[in-house]
Amino acid sequence: MSETKSLLEAFNATAMKLAGHGKRDIEVLKEAFAGVDGQTDSDIYGGGRLIEDFQAEMAEVLGKETAVFFPSGTMAQQIALRIWCDRKGMKTVAYHPLCHLEIHEQDGLKELHHIEPLLLADKDSLITLDDVKNIGRDIACLLLELPQREIGGQLPEYAELKAISAYCRGQGIILHLDGARLFEVLPYYGKTAAEVCSLFDSVYISFYKGIGGIAGAILAGSKEFTEESKIWKRRHGGDLVSLYPYIVPARYYYRQRAGKMGQYYEEAKELAALLGGCHKVSTLPQQPVSNMFHVHFAIAKEQLEPILITVYEQTGVGLTASLRETGETSCFFEMHIGDRYGIIPKAELGAAVELLDHLIKQA
Amino acid sequence: MSETKSLLEAFNATAMKLAGHGKRDIEVLKEAFAGVDGQTDSDIYGGGRLIEDFQAEMAEVLGKETAVFFPSGTMAQQIALRIWCDRKGMKTVAYHPLCHLEIHEQDGLKELHHIEPLLLADKDSLITLDDVKNIGRDIACLLLELPQREIGGQLPEYAELKAISAYCRGQGIILHLDGARLFEVLPYYGKTAAEVCSLFDSVYISFYKGIGGIAGAILAGSKEFTEESKIWKRRHGGDLVSLYPYIVPARYYYRQRAGKMGQYYEEAKELAALLGGCHKVSTLPQQPVSNMFHVHFAIAKEQLEPILITVYEQTGVGLTASLRETGETSCFFEMHIGDRYGIIPKAELGAAVELLDHLIKQA
Repeated sequence: MSETKSLLEAFNATAMKLAGHGKRDIEVLKEAFAGVDGQTDSDIYGGGRLIEDFQAEMAEVLGKETAVFFPSGTMAQQIALRIWCDRKGMKTVAYHPLCHLEIHEQDGLKELHHIEPLLLADKDSLITLDDVKNIGRDIACLLLELPQREIGGQLPEYAELKAISAYCRGQGIILHLDGARLFEVLPYYGKTAAEVCSLFDSVYISFYKGIGGIAGAILAGSKEFTEESKIWKRRHGGDLVSLYPYIVPARYYYRQRAGKMGQYYEEAKELAALLGGCHKVSTLPQQPVSNMFHVHFAIAKEQLEPILITVYEQTGVGLTASLRETGETSCFFEMHIGDRYGIIPKAELGAAVELLDHLIKQA
Repeated sequence: MSETKSLLEAFNATAMKLAGHGKRDIEVLKEAFAGVDGQTDSDIYGGGRLIEDFQAEMAEVLGKETAVFFPSGTMAQQIALRIWCDRKGMKTVAYHPLCHLEIHEQDGLKELHHIEPLLLADKDSLITLDDVKNIGRDIACLLLELPQREIGGQLPEYAELKAISAYCRGQGIILHLDGARLFEVLPYYGKTAAEVCSLFDSVYISFYKGIGGIAGAILAGSKEFTEESKIWKRRHGGDLVSLYPYIVPARYYYRQRAGKMGQYYEEAKELAALLGGCHKVSTLPQQPVSNMFHVHFAIAKEQLEPILITVYEQTGVGLTASLRETGETSCFFEMHIGDRYGIIPKAELGAAVELLDHLIKQA
């Protein structure tokens, strides 16, 4: 049986999945709208109480003058960088080699805005103050992603972050925050969102990562900045007549989960310790600094897959639906803790980890 | 009372509004999702049955090889023109001076794609075959909007449309259809959507005009064309992780209303005849060719507003929430017929039109 079943199929059949909040199904929308009065007016092209109230609430949370709701972070961030480049009269920004704009957006920043990114730091490392000091040319804006998702969700220490911010201000470099997972890092930093955002000139946050909404993003900054972003939102085709299908769930799940990030963070540390204790398994970061981390295996993907399938079938615990190769005898997957993890009995989890360790040793 | 009440307030207080399907409130979403199983999987970044099935259904309706769902027509059409310009190695397209891309999109086509439009025809006229023949320079693509919304929803005769299409094919000019209101013109043409679309290389349709969905658009054409459009959709920030909040209502209201366009068209002709019979009132077109038309008044806006308020208050019939000035002693509003019109008793409607006529005569 196991030989012919794919990892995805075996994962889908498990009763206890470790990652996330739950299935991405239409119930996510239905639950968010269940308590909302049908007579509530739609937002209309960025206006109306529904969108304006939520934007004001998020501006307050992020400690910025104003905020604008966007259908996507891809749109919000390209626009932020475009505005800062126009302001500075330069077409160069700096960001990490594994920045979302560099690897997941079909080069929209280059193709639509003709902005050239300078890739800072090695792809396996965080951007440091030294990297910023050694740029050696004029840039309009530096984008920092907290946490740096593609390397397991690593974070600079807060003192380093403050030093980078102070240096940029001194040099006239605009600092933009890719805060797709901003709420997720607040427990580690021990700071409010507004405190972290005060180090940045503009901030993007997402509602479908740790918050678990359907889609949508907020871009926040000064009123002058966000007003200009609305013009670009229209140009990009993102000024939809009605964005409430994303705003209502964003608000609903924000209220439900923004306060649970500390719990997810503690659970991530617990799970990383369990998995990291297995033979040929390590986590990145070794101790997570948010709800996410990467799980690396010093085993070939083809060798690990049947092992995971056996673990899924015998214990009902699902670790991941897919593995990504990093070499001939190594692979990894991404873990992010949400509502699901906490409801899995520790005994079942322990049995799954023990079996995984046992099967890897035998392999 | 009337003197201090705004036209908008008086309109909102009426029980019988002539235009549209109903209030744009959250009930529009709730109704569309009421019958949908919550266990239905979300679409994921353009993939999954929910989006793929609807795209296939719309490709079939439009008689094109493939179709892609977009969050907005603004995004879909800029992308269509960009693809055709790239294909032809030219940066010039032609469209009407009151084209949506020219007047409602903050110059996204120019600012993001650096495409220069050539404005064809006088702004008060339709684009004719002669206009196209006399362009006098190379263009990649001609965009035609059916019906031409900003001039009351006028339409070229079908023979003229066929002649323009044949001429463009002969000259190697790509023809793109702005079909935001395509279904609305089919009863007048007596053609299927696929028949009309066969004259065009690419087609955009909208789901929140006559269809009355929440937002969203389809772009259809050859597989090569739509595959390229998906790359640009990602670049624009429109490749959302989940578009089902727009797709499900688009499908729901398409099935409910695509078959009612003939009824709306007949009702538009009836209402235009009634209003056009009033003193100092005319409609454009004189006889509508779709569910929409403009109602023009040879009276100053400030003089007409209290008259309309009196009509609304005394009869409960609401014609429009706002008037647009066209001169010192002239103004107009746009009418589009949907589900609301048919449920208004003829006696009430007649009384309102009679009072309007009477008050204008007295003015």
